[in-house]
Amino acid sequence: MTDAAAARPEARNPRGFADRRGRDLVAERRLVQRVSAVYERWGFEPLETGAFEYADALGKFLPDADRPNEGVFALQDDDDQWMALRYDLTAPLARFAAQNWETLPKPFRRYAFGPVWRNEKPGPGRFREFVQCDADTVGSDRPEADAEIIAMACEGLQAAGLAAGQAVIRVSNRKLFDGLFEAGGVTDPLQKLTALRAIDKFDRLGWEGVAALLGEGRLDESGDYTKGANLPLGVAATIEAFLASAGDAGLSRAATLERVAAAGGLGAIGEAALEELAAIDRALAAMKVDQSAVRFDPTIVRGLEYYTGAVFEAELLLETIDDKGRAVRFGSIGGGGRYDDLVARFTGERLPATGFSFGVSRLASALRAAGRGDEDAVRGPVVVIVFSEADMQHYLDAVSELRSAGVPAELYLGRAGMKAQMKYADRRGAPAAVILGGDEIAAGQVTIKDLDAGRALAAGVADNEAWKAERPGQRLVPRGELVSTVRSIVEAARTAS
Amino acid sequence: MTDAAAARPEARNPRGFADRRGRDLVAERRLVQRVSAVYERWGFEPLETGAFEYADALGKFLPDADRPNEGVFALQDDDDQWMALRYDLTAPLARFAAQNWETLPKPFRRYAFGPVWRNEKPGPGRFREFVQCDADTVGSDRPEADAEIIAMACEGLQAAGLAAGQAVIRVSNRKLFDGLFEAGGVTDPLQKLTALRAIDKFDRLGWEGVAALLGEGRLDESGDYTKGANLPLGVAATIEAFLASAGDAGLSRAATLERVAAAGGLGAIGEAALEELAAIDRALAAMKVDQSAVRFDPTIVRGLEYYTGAVFEAELLLETIDDKGRAVRFGSIGGGGRYDDLVARFTGERLPATGFSFGVSRLASALRAAGRGDEDAVRGPVVVIVFSEADMQHYLDAVSELRSAGVPAELYLGRAGMKAQMKYADRRGAPAAVILGGDEIAAGQVTIKDLDAGRALAAGVADNEAWKAERPGQRLVPRGELVSTVRSIVEAARTAS
Repeated sequence: MTDAAAARPEARNPRGFADRRGRDLVAERRLVQRVSAVYERWGFEPLETGAFEYADALGKFLPDADRPNEGVFALQDDDDQWMALRYDLTAPLARFAAQNWETLPKPFRRYAFGPVWRNEKPGPGRFREFVQCDADTVGSDRPEADAEIIAMACEGLQAAGLAAGQAVIRVSNRKLFDGLFEAGGVTDPLQKLTALRAIDKFDRLGWEGVAALLGEGRLDESGDYTKGANLPLGVAATIEAFLASAGDAGLSRAATLERVAAAGGLGAIGEAALEELAAIDRALAAMKVDQSAVRFDPTIVRGLEYYTGAVFEAELLLETIDDKGRAVRFGSIGGGGRYDDLVARFTGERLPATGFSFGVSRLASALRAAGRGDEDAVRGPVVVIVFSEADMQHYLDAVSELRSAGVPAELYLGRAGMKAQMKYADRRGAPAAVILGGDEIAAGQVTIKDLDAGRALAAGVADNEAWKAERPGQRLVPRGELVSTVRSIVEAARTAS
Repeated sequence: MTDAAAARPEARNPRGFADRRGRDLVAERRLVQRVSAVYERWGFEPLETGAFEYADALGKFLPDADRPNEGVFALQDDDDQWMALRYDLTAPLARFAAQNWETLPKPFRRYAFGPVWRNEKPGPGRFREFVQCDADTVGSDRPEADAEIIAMACEGLQAAGLAAGQAVIRVSNRKLFDGLFEAGGVTDPLQKLTALRAIDKFDRLGWEGVAALLGEGRLDESGDYTKGANLPLGVAATIEAFLASAGDAGLSRAATLERVAAAGGLGAIGEAALEELAAIDRALAAMKVDQSAVRFDPTIVRGLEYYTGAVFEAELLLETIDDKGRAVRFGSIGGGGRYDDLVARFTGERLPATGFSFGVSRLASALRAAGRGDEDAVRGPVVVIVFSEADMQHYLDAVSELRSAGVPAELYLGRAGMKAQMKYADRRGAPAAVILGGDEIAAGQVTIKDLDAGRALAAGVADNEAWKAERPGQRLVPRGELVSTVRSIVEAARTAS
């Protein structure tokens, strides 16, 4: 290795940062555009804040902040103030609302999308930069504000491409557990945490396993003993009712509330939480939100500590097949809730707020994996082949005519021969290649290769004479029929896909 | 001040970072969408790279890097590698192309937009985060590739909202000066820099002042003496011809090249540069790019040191009026050129590339200042007024009907009275407010306030009876006519604006 080579940097992405291009990127952008259109129709205005916030303004609300810089990318500005890249879109909204409250229309509805950054250990499918899309209402304590966010999230997910039944939003209220613990005399934070973690394991352990963890503890198959939460029996019984109601997919929202109320032991705070949920249900019903699209599930907690009331979790019910042929559920793609204290960090005055956030890349890849990204298939441009410098005018005219007709088109700009150019057109996903050789030009004609037909024939999917007669791989037409011929090929390709 | 208040963070943006919302943001997004549509029609695929690059991959190509961390936001990752936020979209493209060259279609055309970050001293209108939009072709040394970028940039600027004659792209070739200096025996880098800086002052000093700075030096009116470049007379004479051709707006591209050739003294390198420009002109002519939209200007240099051939600069000719009533030209909004060595930093092998970049916020604010942002006026949603909890169903039905008809609409979600709600609707820029009081509901009717008519009457612009008869400020209509009545108001507002 020479010194020059040794000094050369290696071309690589920083760990946990990815490049996105072509089809995937276009699909993600369409998704965001469709959801944005819904959010704007619901009266939410767009807001973009800067990538950096002062560290003190950002606060420390990340779960799993197990690293020295607490999960964010931080640096010290030249005036010694610490700044950090935003880790979500809620903290910047709280800062913005506190800063501009006097001049904002109240309540203030805004939506936002953009990258967020988390300084966590990267891994497969786990990035340190990803795109979120949020909608929030600041300044309304009405349950209708929560219901609106939930109903709008449903409509947004549908606009993104999810059919009815492919997603569900589960809704609960943080204060159910607050009330239950208070009324049951459970005050130790560790005891509460152990209980909530046990509930999270219901899918894996079933009620018997969870009951052990809510009680004295549990010896698992490997012989490890996990200490339990030692909850009073009444509290554990109510949690059992919570889990039963969550597991019964046939229950309406109102019926779920009845079951939870019947379990008892919720205390005044828990009863108030139930009343809030009932008001949300009335508003959802008034907005004609389907019982299967939004369910109540008292076991939903959400990790972030800033939630103060209603909490939401959006779960994809789509099943996809993984590399090993197993059916995989995507699970949670977003969530949110009410956070009435976040703006007060700045102002000292409580300002009610509620919102919903989802991961754009995560939803896009779920749709793709479920085969619902096909409509977003991105075609390459029509490629005009280059033979001779002297005929450049002819090539450029053809490209220009196609573009003017709204057909994406490009001139091959390398210096390779015909064969390499056809390969290039194929790799670009071009529907057609335009050939203007000396003979064609002299005769006032143009040859158009139908590359999809060629691909289909090569793949044997269209190996019959009738099909070939209908879609010949190559056509020689009068020059004046360039655009109409290309257009018919592009449209045939669109219909076939 | 209590301790709690003292501990509260102040709600403020980090220096040089701005929040953008509503109308301005929507206008910027539309601009980017329109330009993207053009770029895709020309066969450029979208690419998004991460915010961070390794510092060594980013290189040091920023001009005015007068600060210790050289103009970028850098931090050390937990594996001790230095990463920095990208300062433009070209360096990440060079890294991406080097990393993926084997699998990319060649030549590779891509466009990109997104924020870039510069750790510079912020000031009024000078941000440390701003949005750029780039298009580049990697892997083509053809002059047609440069011409394509230039022609596409013209079409993109038009799609963004600039009329013909409101912008010009000036094109030159770095190697004109390389050839001129070499042929004239000018080898001292400082001498070259002094000469190029002198040329930059032509607008202010005229030829006499520039001539002095190209020669021995110049005493200005304040008595300060600036040392000159001491160029040989022949070199200075060619530069005079450069400036004369640049100043003659009536010259065609071909005529400009003739003038520059006639000035002589360009040497072999300069002659080759002229031939490249002639080939670009032939391609531009074949693409029917107007002589007034793209001009040759041999004084264009561009600051970035990585350019190796053709260079472009897009200048807005729009004049706007500043705060003090003076006509202001916006000047440069973007530029680009050929950079054949940038990928070789990684691979050691030369890979020709050419591209164009413009500042999205800068162009958007120029269009806004020139009054061309009006078409982008963003209307607020129709606001449905809330009187009584008991009638919530009626309000929600009205909102839902409007949205289903594609009319942005929202329910007032605060807890204030009628007057405050009307004020809210006004601040939201709502075209109409929907009033469903107890009387209206009982009678199967709805009152719709035309807020634009109200504003117009208040402003006295529509203070006549005929107009009032045509657009009454308030209408009581049957409930079934809600959507059609609101729609007629929204459309009247659109026509009037």
